[in-house]
Amino acid sequence: MKRRIVILGGGFAGVYVARRLERRLKRRDDVEVVLVNRENYFVFQPLLPEVISGTIGLTDVVTPLRRLLKRTDVHVREIDGVDLEARTVTLAPGFHPTPQVIHYDHLVIALGTVTDFRGMRGLSEHAFPFKNLADALRLKNHVIRALEEAAIEGDDPELRKRLLTFVVAGGGFSGVEVAAELNDLVRGAVTSYRGIDPKEVKVVLVHSQDRILPEVSPALAAFAEKKLRARGVEIRLNARLEAATAQSAVLKGGEAIATATLVSTVPSFPHPLVEALPLEKAGGRLIVDPFLRAGGRPDVWALGDCARVPAPGGVFSPPTAQHATRQADVVADNILCALDGGAAGPLRFAGLGKMGSLGKRSAVAEILGLNISGFLAWFIWRTIYLMKLPGWGRRLKVAAAWTLDLLLPPELVQLRTDVTPAIAQEHFEPGEIVFHEGDSGDRLYILLRGQAEVLIGTRRVAELAAGAYFGEMALVTNAPRNATVRCITAMDVLALPKRDFGLLATHLPGVKQSVEKVIEERSRARSA
Amino acid sequence: MKRRIVILGGGFAGVYVARRLERRLKRRDDVEVVLVNRENYFVFQPLLPEVISGTIGLTDVVTPLRRLLKRTDVHVREIDGVDLEARTVTLAPGFHPTPQVIHYDHLVIALGTVTDFRGMRGLSEHAFPFKNLADALRLKNHVIRALEEAAIEGDDPELRKRLLTFVVAGGGFSGVEVAAELNDLVRGAVTSYRGIDPKEVKVVLVHSQDRILPEVSPALAAFAEKKLRARGVEIRLNARLEAATAQSAVLKGGEAIATATLVSTVPSFPHPLVEALPLEKAGGRLIVDPFLRAGGRPDVWALGDCARVPAPGGVFSPPTAQHATRQADVVADNILCALDGGAAGPLRFAGLGKMGSLGKRSAVAEILGLNISGFLAWFIWRTIYLMKLPGWGRRLKVAAAWTLDLLLPPELVQLRTDVTPAIAQEHFEPGEIVFHEGDSGDRLYILLRGQAEVLIGTRRVAELAAGAYFGEMALVTNAPRNATVRCITAMDVLALPKRDFGLLATHLPGVKQSVEKVIEERSRARSA
Repeated sequence: MKRRIVILGGGFAGVYVARRLERRLKRRDDVEVVLVNRENYFVFQPLLPEVISGTIGLTDVVTPLRRLLKRTDVHVREIDGVDLEARTVTLAPGFHPTPQVIHYDHLVIALGTVTDFRGMRGLSEHAFPFKNLADALRLKNHVIRALEEAAIEGDDPELRKRLLTFVVAGGGFSGVEVAAELNDLVRGAVTSYRGIDPKEVKVVLVHSQDRILPEVSPALAAFAEKKLRARGVEIRLNARLEAATAQSAVLKGGEAIATATLVSTVPSFPHPLVEALPLEKAGGRLIVDPFLRAGGRPDVWALGDCARVPAPGGVFSPPTAQHATRQADVVADNILCALDGGAAGPLRFAGLGKMGSLGKRSAVAEILGLNISGFLAWFIWRTIYLMKLPGWGRRLKVAAAWTLDLLLPPELVQLRTDVTPAIAQEHFEPGEIVFHEGDSGDRLYILLRGQAEVLIGTRRVAELAAGAYFGEMALVTNAPRNATVRCITAMDVLALPKRDFGLLATHLPGVKQSVEKVIEERSRARSA
Repeated sequence: MKRRIVILGGGFAGVYVARRLERRLKRRDDVEVVLVNRENYFVFQPLLPEVISGTIGLTDVVTPLRRLLKRTDVHVREIDGVDLEARTVTLAPGFHPTPQVIHYDHLVIALGTVTDFRGMRGLSEHAFPFKNLADALRLKNHVIRALEEAAIEGDDPELRKRLLTFVVAGGGFSGVEVAAELNDLVRGAVTSYRGIDPKEVKVVLVHSQDRILPEVSPALAAFAEKKLRARGVEIRLNARLEAATAQSAVLKGGEAIATATLVSTVPSFPHPLVEALPLEKAGGRLIVDPFLRAGGRPDVWALGDCARVPAPGGVFSPPTAQHATRQADVVADNILCALDGGAAGPLRFAGLGKMGSLGKRSAVAEILGLNISGFLAWFIWRTIYLMKLPGWGRRLKVAAAWTLDLLLPPELVQLRTDVTPAIAQEHFEPGEIVFHEGDSGDRLYILLRGQAEVLIGTRRVAELAAGAYFGEMALVTNAPRNATVRCITAMDVLALPKRDFGLLATHLPGVKQSVEKVIEERSRARSA
């Protein structure tokens, strides 16, 4: 009977295990390899920030898994669960609402980490994560929308300022690269917008420590800091992001930066599936032995960012691509030893260096102990990553895009696919206005947590507590808002768009009645 | 005081009016030009189908309006209304929920047409329109998802067949180009999918007349038909699409083609804003005089697909780019005559020819009376459109993409941005199954129109009529569906995803009670 190796996750770790297995199993058909990933492509993570400024094309940074893994069964699905005793993985339903169960002989866990804003007020509602291609696309679209709106909102200086301020939280490699690319995009684009003065644009990098890039030496960090400042990035050190709303980024200590665009690269959490597994963890990462077996089981392997992998010298492997790919070779080889007999080997790789791009022909790098910065570092950075890109097709496309980028201004297309607003949660901090008297009314709010006050002019006419509806009048009449609602304490609301409300009110009898009752009570109270 | 020309619409018609005005107003600052469009880019419509097969990049087919129109005030907003008496245009709110009002001295209406599936059963819920960039992106993503799912649904031959059948309705230029590109994509991609036999793929073009491409001569149409058939496109003539469901395309006469992907390029309707204007129309298009004035007003002009423009020889201009751009010159010149004095001129352009691509180095063209087909037509087609693309940057990018396309296989990346399912309507035709006993339950249904039956095994246990809920148990327990629901008459339902239902049930008291009542009644009925 065929034996089956199931790999969970299609990042560097998972894909490189599959590639190594494919190469070593070339002439054998007694072992099959299955890889499960939620997207049908592999993201070349180091180049993802370049998508923001458009230096490379939207899809140049990813490779379809099927092109990469020609002898692996790729399943593009969410994973519902893993049963270590029954040795099965359950996949979420696809077109047809029935789950799929896959049996394994060896399981490879390479699920990486997820962005998770748990416990940070308002971040999951209002901060942009930056982890995958959809995040990059959403961020870029939002930034361009902010520019479009700023260009025609000449009469509202406060709104303009908010629209033209872009905040990135987190000063590690990822945050610095995002800030650099965002800055390149906005400053390159703004010259095409009549009615925006380039001096109005502000890009702010917020970092909790006293220097950026803790991953590299102080000298390289200082170089990066100087470079970014020279390009117009404002760097706020020793500042920690604490909360977010649609209107501002709130720092610890209470200072609020008015912004419509907040990116947070900070919180990486273990994948929920890893969390749920009954295997020993440290800091959320799966503990593995030097052979990369997890939980002392002979048939479960873990690697990449979701595992705490012991490296030579008594340290642990850092969560980067160069380490994940080396771990992948060890896992693949050890699984084949387990299947065929033979002595497993431990991980011996200690790392070659670190690199980070600063955009526009500048970078910092520590390679084999050398500190390099500026154009040379950038040139090395590009060359290494271009050669590491999987497949000649992709390399050609990226090289072509890089060449065209030298000639052409940044891409300004706002690519919207989702036009219907859905039911969403929103967060407000004290003093913020939910809506003004006279605004158009486009949604009903339900107050989940916190308190707000209702103002007509400057007179307070009511106070709202958890459970209260507000803004309901606008759903019934087409008149503008008849009062202002201002937040008293930090507050979470559920916003129900007019269209959804209309559908529900028509077909779910309870909804209409509830809202009508509130309206009636309020109008009675007002006329009394 | 400055006079203001406001142009509504950023297609060929609107953009070329603005370009002509910019050129002629170069040294004047007494006239300002405003252009309003819902997207921040101009779509080069003739190349849009190429996005499907990925011959050109996703954003190569569009140009940011601000790059194209450097002296025009571009407003990226929806239009809420036009007041011809007050001479104002009201724009929908942006970030801030307050509408914007713009005064005009001259109004140019260039709103084109919209896809509208009104009156066709199930099309607005289940057919893909193909009009703008978002449509192209959504279609491509869906097609790749269908391939991904087919590759792993080995156990369900019916589902597989449905996933691997792609139907395009409408055999004019637009439908033929979409079918050709879709066919190229699917047949090029499928070789990368282990577990799909290329022979399983079916692309069907449905057309209501007895030959495709009514726009060109019978000889060219016959050439196109032969070419498409040779590439594996099945052409169904004298067949009219009548209804659509998630499971099939239903033809007039009742035949149902099982498919998960139906594209309809057919119904072009007037823009709702044009419909609402108190100006004379014919077949939904604004009637204009030979000078392109609408409704006999000296300050309102209309052109492009939303206008019925008299052309030389007593005919009307067809709705294509070459005519829209010539009309644009006439409108721009006549507006300047109206502002400055001078004699307006009528439209004199009668058309140069017609072209349509068949994908993969083949096309048909009628140019200056000559019929050309095959490679030569394709070469002319590419050259003409490349030269017509606005801006050297875009030309360079498209030329580079076309060159790479000769070397590389089609792009297989499924680019998802919207992951949360929203409240949606769905349509079913008689006999179709909404869900099976044993399926996972992920949504609640509300029956809007039509009838259904509830089956346990083959036994009918209940009948459902308009207003009934079903599938509600799955929202309360996590158990699989305990019965099958099958459609009796054509039926529309509202599907409420579990997440939305959960949010609403928690916070809108009426919702939970309504559903609980139904559950209680049903369990009582069952135990009785």
